[in-house]
Amino acid sequence: MKIYEFRAFPNPLRARMAAAEKGLTDRIEFIQVDVPNGEHKRPEFLQLNPVGKVPVLVLDDGTAIAECTAITEYLDHSAGTPVLTGETAQQRAQIHMLQRRAEALVLDAASDYFHHATAGLGKLEPIQIKEWGEYQRQVAIRGMHYFDSVLRGRRYVMGEQLTMPDITLFAGLALIELLQIGIPETCTNLRGWRDRVGQRPSASA
Amino acid sequence: MKIYEFRAFPNPLRARMAAAEKGLTDRIEFIQVDVPNGEHKRPEFLQLNPVGKVPVLVLDDGTAIAECTAITEYLDHSAGTPVLTGETAQQRAQIHMLQRRAEALVLDAASDYFHHATAGLGKLEPIQIKEWGEYQRQVAIRGMHYFDSVLRGRRYVMGEQLTMPDITLFAGLALIELLQIGIPETCTNLRGWRDRVGQRPSASA
Repeated sequence: MKIYEFRAFPNPLRARMAAAEKGLTDRIEFIQVDVPNGEHKRPEFLQLNPVGKVPVLVLDDGTAIAECTAITEYLDHSAGTPVLTGETAQQRAQIHMLQRRAEALVLDAASDYFHHATAGLGKLEPIQIKEWGEYQRQVAIRGMHYFDSVLRGRRYVMGEQLTMPDITLFAGLALIELLQIGIPETCTNLRGWRDRVGQRPSASA
Repeated sequence: MKIYEFRAFPNPLRARMAAAEKGLTDRIEFIQVDVPNGEHKRPEFLQLNPVGKVPVLVLDDGTAIAECTAITEYLDHSAGTPVLTGETAQQRAQIHMLQRRAEALVLDAASDYFHHATAGLGKLEPIQIKEWGEYQRQVAIRGMHYFDSVLRGRRYVMGEQLTMPDITLFAGLALIELLQIGIPETCTNLRGWRDRVGQRPSASA
């Protein structure tokens, strides 16, 4: 398997963390895509992912899988039991619910702030709507308070075990710190959780 | 099981279609939430779904599952084999990739147009950024062209069998027609597919 990525960015971190949690890192060739210079918008890359985003997982038969939820589903079902996406109907449902919220309320919201209300990727931005970016920054702050409440008395967002939404939320907070939005002081559950996840080997994979 | 929904809206249609495709409709009590009058933003409903959106699936033990992908995962794994979300790692990955694209490129894009560039839900809209809504309308149009290419020579987006992203895309096109954005004339694969899905009993469930 190959993963096309750009190491400094939060969505590639999600795929790397999922691979590391599943013990699959050694079976994957990681290929860097020069995102700051627009390599992800060139025809060769758009053939892999018409949406023009990293990461993309390419299977040995050439099948290209984009979108982090999809990549995580693949890796999770390729080795051992599916710990990241759950085994029972109820686990799967709760994990996917929290996954979507970690995206919409934290990571994607912070990403919209980056692309619309900061310099973003500069010339590569198709459009910048500052008001939307600033609104999404507020969504991300509310999202952190929401996950702080989810994490009350819990080791990870689903309970005792790390699952897919923990990875998404961790990548979201990494972006939030990079953009100097900051994790609210009062979000003590979230801050403790961030340090806990940060100590896992997968976080520096 | 109960599903809290508002029958006229596209996301509730996704849950109803998934239930019907799985033969589970008779086992679910559907409860209407008066979205136009803001019932989905009142404290009683926010206890079920802090994000304040329909649909929400409530299991017999009281567990509340929001987000359509999560609801579909639950229903799909609760009866028979998982036809909507796939059985193998590769099927699961491709289905989740297309699911995310059907959301981001069509349904969510059209929904942003509705909320930001039309009257939307009126007084209930927290903020309206017209430029963002108009931009997302263009995303939805490009998204329809993308899915038209996916559907070339295929009965459904994954091939011979209807899966989760077909439902999401169908709900997206229903919204697009409601908002009079229109399906491009040149998207003949997409138009044929829309009529094919529309003839399934689940489409009028």
